[in-house]
Amino acid sequence: MKISVGIIGISGYTGLELVKLLINHPNFELCYAGATSQNELEDIFPSLKNVLNLKVEVADTNEAKKRCKLLFLALPHTEGMKVAKELRGSGVKIVDLSADYRVSLENYERNYCPHLDKDGLKDAVYGLVEINRNKIKTANLIANPGCYPTCSLLALLPFADMLEPKFGVMIDAKSGLSGAGKSLKQTSHFVNVNENVNAYSPLTHRHEGEIKEHLNKNRKDCLKDDIDVMFVPHLVPLTRGMLVSSFLVLKDEFKGIDPLQILRDFYKNEKFIRIRTEPVSTKFVSGTHFCDIFAINKNGKLWINGGIDNLLRGASSQALANANLMFGFDESLGLPLVGDSI
Amino acid sequence: MKISVGIIGISGYTGLELVKLLINHPNFELCYAGATSQNELEDIFPSLKNVLNLKVEVADTNEAKKRCKLLFLALPHTEGMKVAKELRGSGVKIVDLSADYRVSLENYERNYCPHLDKDGLKDAVYGLVEINRNKIKTANLIANPGCYPTCSLLALLPFADMLEPKFGVMIDAKSGLSGAGKSLKQTSHFVNVNENVNAYSPLTHRHEGEIKEHLNKNRKDCLKDDIDVMFVPHLVPLTRGMLVSSFLVLKDEFKGIDPLQILRDFYKNEKFIRIRTEPVSTKFVSGTHFCDIFAINKNGKLWINGGIDNLLRGASSQALANANLMFGFDESLGLPLVGDSI
Amino acid sequence: MKISVGIIGISGYTGLELVKLLINHPNFELCYAGATSQNELEDIFPSLKNVLNLKVEVADTNEAKKRCKLLFLALPHTEGMKVAKELRGSGVKIVDLSADYRVSLENYERNYCPHLDKDGLKDAVYGLVEINRNKIKTANLIANPGCYPTCSLLALLPFADMLEPKFGVMIDAKSGLSGAGKSLKQTSHFVNVNENVNAYSPLTHRHEGEIKEHLNKNRKDCLKDDIDVMFVPHLVPLTRGMLVSSFLVLKDEFKGIDPLQILRDFYKNEKFIRIRTEPVSTKFVSGTHFCDIFAINKNGKLWINGGIDNLLRGASSQALANANLMFGFDESLGLPLVGDSI
Amino acid sequence: MKISVGIIGISGYTGLELVKLLINHPNFELCYAGATSQNELEDIFPSLKNVLNLKVEVADTNEAKKRCKLLFLALPHTEGMKVAKELRGSGVKIVDLSADYRVSLENYERNYCPHLDKDGLKDAVYGLVEINRNKIKTANLIANPGCYPTCSLLALLPFADMLEPKFGVMIDAKSGLSGAGKSLKQTSHFVNVNENVNAYSPLTHRHEGEIKEHLNKNRKDCLKDDIDVMFVPHLVPLTRGMLVSSFLVLKDEFKGIDPLQILRDFYKNEKFIRIRTEPVSTKFVSGTHFCDIFAINKNGKLWINGGIDNLLRGASSQALANANLMFGFDESLGLPLVGDSI
Repeated sequence: MKISVGIIGISGYTGLELVKLLINHPNFELCYAGATSQNELEDIFPSLKNVLNLKVEVADTNEAKKRCKLLFLALPHTEGMKVAKELRGSGVKIVDLSADYRVSLENYERNYCPHLDKDGLKDAVYGLVEINRNKIKTANLIANPGCYPTCSLLALLPFADMLEPKFGVMIDAKSGLSGAGKSLKQTSHFVNVNENVNAYSPLTHRHEGEIKEHLNKNRKDCLKDDIDVMFVPHLVPLTRGMLVSSFLVLKDEFKGIDPLQILRDFYKNEKFIRIRTEPVSTKFVSGTHFCDIFAINKNGKLWINGGIDNLLRGASSQALANANLMFGFDESLGLPLVGDSI
Repeated sequence: MKISVGIIGISGYTGLELVKLLINHPNFELCYAGATSQNELEDIFPSLKNVLNLKVEVADTNEAKKRCKLLFLALPHTEGMKVAKELRGSGVKIVDLSADYRVSLENYERNYCPHLDKDGLKDAVYGLVEINRNKIKTANLIANPGCYPTCSLLALLPFADMLEPKFGVMIDAKSGLSGAGKSLKQTSHFVNVNENVNAYSPLTHRHEGEIKEHLNKNRKDCLKDDIDVMFVPHLVPLTRGMLVSSFLVLKDEFKGIDPLQILRDFYKNEKFIRIRTEPVSTKFVSGTHFCDIFAINKNGKLWINGGIDNLLRGASSQALANANLMFGFDESLGLPLVGDSI
Repeated sequence: MKISVGIIGISGYTGLELVKLLINHPNFELCYAGATSQNELEDIFPSLKNVLNLKVEVADTNEAKKRCKLLFLALPHTEGMKVAKELRGSGVKIVDLSADYRVSLENYERNYCPHLDKDGLKDAVYGLVEINRNKIKTANLIANPGCYPTCSLLALLPFADMLEPKFGVMIDAKSGLSGAGKSLKQTSHFVNVNENVNAYSPLTHRHEGEIKEHLNKNRKDCLKDDIDVMFVPHLVPLTRGMLVSSFLVLKDEFKGIDPLQILRDFYKNEKFIRIRTEPVSTKFVSGTHFCDIFAINKNGKLWINGGIDNLLRGASSQALANANLMFGFDESLGLPLVGDSI
Repeated sequence: MKISVGIIGISGYTGLELVKLLINHPNFELCYAGATSQNELEDIFPSLKNVLNLKVEVADTNEAKKRCKLLFLALPHTEGMKVAKELRGSGVKIVDLSADYRVSLENYERNYCPHLDKDGLKDAVYGLVEINRNKIKTANLIANPGCYPTCSLLALLPFADMLEPKFGVMIDAKSGLSGAGKSLKQTSHFVNVNENVNAYSPLTHRHEGEIKEHLNKNRKDCLKDDIDVMFVPHLVPLTRGMLVSSFLVLKDEFKGIDPLQILRDFYKNEKFIRIRTEPVSTKFVSGTHFCDIFAINKNGKLWINGGIDNLLRGASSQALANANLMFGFDESLGLPLVGDSI
């Protein structure tokens, strides 16, 4: 018997990706789809016509609770914690794709708004699967990591204890437009994106704090020095795909490391991390759960290059990997190994 | 036990798509991969690193024959028939993705070159699955249809007996660049494709003859009047996707038809044909085996609009559907219902 | 002394193109820029920072009348005629880029809404420069043609008297996204446009009627048979550029024509019409005032292929050509011969 | 009387851009066009049909010398110095767009190949106009800077004397595909570029040495510390446009600077440098000679963001600016202020 699962906030891009992943999942069955208004799934996503006949209902936490053992919250921040709080104690497991449980209270309230579920925040586990796998297995509430933090942290963490703190980490990240969501903004009008590339929110993007917090949390000497992060995201004219460049200076004792060997050792049993010997092309990982990483050491200065599919490893397939772990399944069930890119 | 299958000509786009489809197929196992030179699969297709470890061998028909019960020939025209001819009588079933067995000898030699396997040509079945399903089931050699003919014919055939012959059919087709193949040409240089759209080979493309032959073959009164076809393909700046506009005049007695009803009736049991009530967006079918069709009747003049993924329904997934039928499997095994597009 | 001109509705794409054209114009000087709100020009168009310092004012017809001898109305339909009507009798010449004066009252009211300036409509001249040049010279109010009609008519009119009326003309047109305007719509969200192509408003687009009216108006025997037009526009993923395919059947007596010769004769003195011997690439005309045309005759059936820059020849540079003629200047003053495409 | 100028190597992208710039130049007249084979200009560049009728000749230095007072060499490295050497002493002024005269002998031979014109190398002036304007005015041989160095240096030089040498400069650069040239490579096949982004030649690109040399040359204390540069270029799916992110650490005494003020002071009289208060979009500068710059200081760490059109300011319009200066003309003659982007 399959586990019945639901999605609240199905009408966005990460909702669609979750639906497509769940269609092929052997152990989960999508039984509940909530959104702000009632609809046929194919009217929201015409590509799903004749693929899945599912009524989209007006989201109702009580109803969802009754019908599901697991809920994916594909909601904007604030909305995520409202629902998660209502579900507290119900026994329904939650993977929250919003930002609401990803960082400390202080970090959250500085970057977002007052937090509405401080108890939840204490219990939530940051769902970066390769790093927090054991905690995820017993968690009831997963904070699914942001797309930029996922890609940045997977590439940086193997070097976390080698960083010269004085210099910190400088990150130049590029994302396809699906990362900006479905809502209509000047910045996602085709004419503004096509034949253009630009940075946005440089050094002020909320993911800067998320990267910094989890980078430092995973350092052995994290109490001594706070490693600073400068984070500059860019929009590039593609639909899906994310690429991250990190520049950093190594402590003197690590000056001579072979970064590819460090990466291979760190991720030696990881099926979904691929260490490349050439720079990463986003199309290698597009449509998949893979995170590909490459790095070069130039006299103790490192350039690290990571790539993911922002909607899958950066959101929905990572959410599914978390769900697999929470239910004791093989982590890789239903995670896509190949995509449409050629 | 799975059926062992091979691909000759694995290094092109249709080869890659076949590999990805076969990875997930329950009944076929990819055991042989031939190309012009030896290689690791991941060196040809970096996206397949850690997904499938398969040695690509120098293509050798004898070797392929020994190891496979089914061969996909993903080769240019002329190369397809050379291999197919060598395999004749071996018991190995063949799906030829080249143009070599798609049309009559006369049509072939007018548009391509002298034919090298006239016996094979007589036995080959044109693998347009919805139309020739029964013949495909017992065939040993399938001529997998061209991409433009697949999309054009699926949209046109329901109206084949309603056409006013004097006018014929006028087709304006648009294809993504993957249809032009992997080889390096000025016409596929990014700078020439991006921010550009243009027709090519207007009224002289080889698919014009293929469409015309199969359109007429499927008309009840095909001996009386040869319906002419004017076919103009275009390159549009996308990687995958194909859209076809057909204009035609209906015979007087069909002037009042509801074309959507005609389409629904014609394809009423077809899982992979979707009749739309709005024009087709290629992104609805991208990454899938679907062919979506829409049509409007304006006082006895028809505009029919079809869309497919040129590499899947226009090549590799159709090849797989043919293979499924040839082996008595459920036609839909392993055919993709969803893609990466959002 | 330069002629002082103004633009009302400067904040859209055609407004910007007009500004850029006027910057380099030897005889016109942009003195007035009106929009719905007050602004610095560079805040609306950051690319114009340090290029032109012009205050954008809240549009005021009285003010514009005082300061300008010529006004370009870059407004949506209905808004165009409201302003034009107010200016009637003022001596200010007008080039209206909206649809308000392009077609007959009957055609307009069927496709748009009740007309508010029937007198203006009688006096207005359809500003297709190659066709109506003499009338334009003495006009006070120009209806600047639509983008699709400009490209379609320039390609079709040389054959207007050769058409077999029974079949009419079937047009498949493709436009870049700038044609859809600057406002935020699902259909211009990058994610919906990129890697996609689709028809829209098939056989119901308002430009169908505009093409039909002016095609028939320019036929010698237009009273006898009304040539019908089937018009299907498509969105293709590019910013600027328009390509039109027209299919038609020739009357028997014209079956043997050489269409390139017909085109060359018809446009023999036209600097901005180029007859191609290969299909037109939109990038050949992008950024310019050129209309490039190619055609093939296949046994009395014609495929005609025209390309323009939708924002220039399809809007702003055509508006400027009209303005040049209205003031007795060389028609080609300030019209761009080269663009950025490579 | 106009100065007669020629282009050797006209068939590439920078050749085309030079042609388009020279068409509108008031003081230069294009009299000579050399390439590897004879041709009509419109056969190489169909967009120039009816725009400029110029025979392209097989390049011949003697012929060029006779007919021109100025030659633009739009050639690959090595080819540039061969021609320049032959022209030495002829009185013909040269703007060499190749890499041959941009860096020191040692730097050149380490990154390229043995140098064939060491005397020329001593005399050549690095044509970064804002920085070397006075030297350019009297030069006979200009080394036109590389595209990445132009954009990087214009953004970095105002801070050259404030850099903490220990950390150096870390540059993440993005370029459109026109920067990769017209030749056919897997990396410029549309299918490989579209929906993809990737770094290439990280820390090994030849422009790294060019940036480093000229950055240090323009520091007051350049003898004391050699500032290192880590340079990682990326291909992004656009035709033209370049964006550069530089990260650096300021010396303690400069920790508190307002970088926008520094930039405004440094470039206070520069018409073609625009200091932005938001991150630069490449489309603001596309089609123009502008270099737009933005920067932020975060506690003594700087992020600097520069954007140019790689083919114009990064090649052909900069070459023209150099030519203007060499002939004593107003530097801005014929330099484009607006492009096609909207």
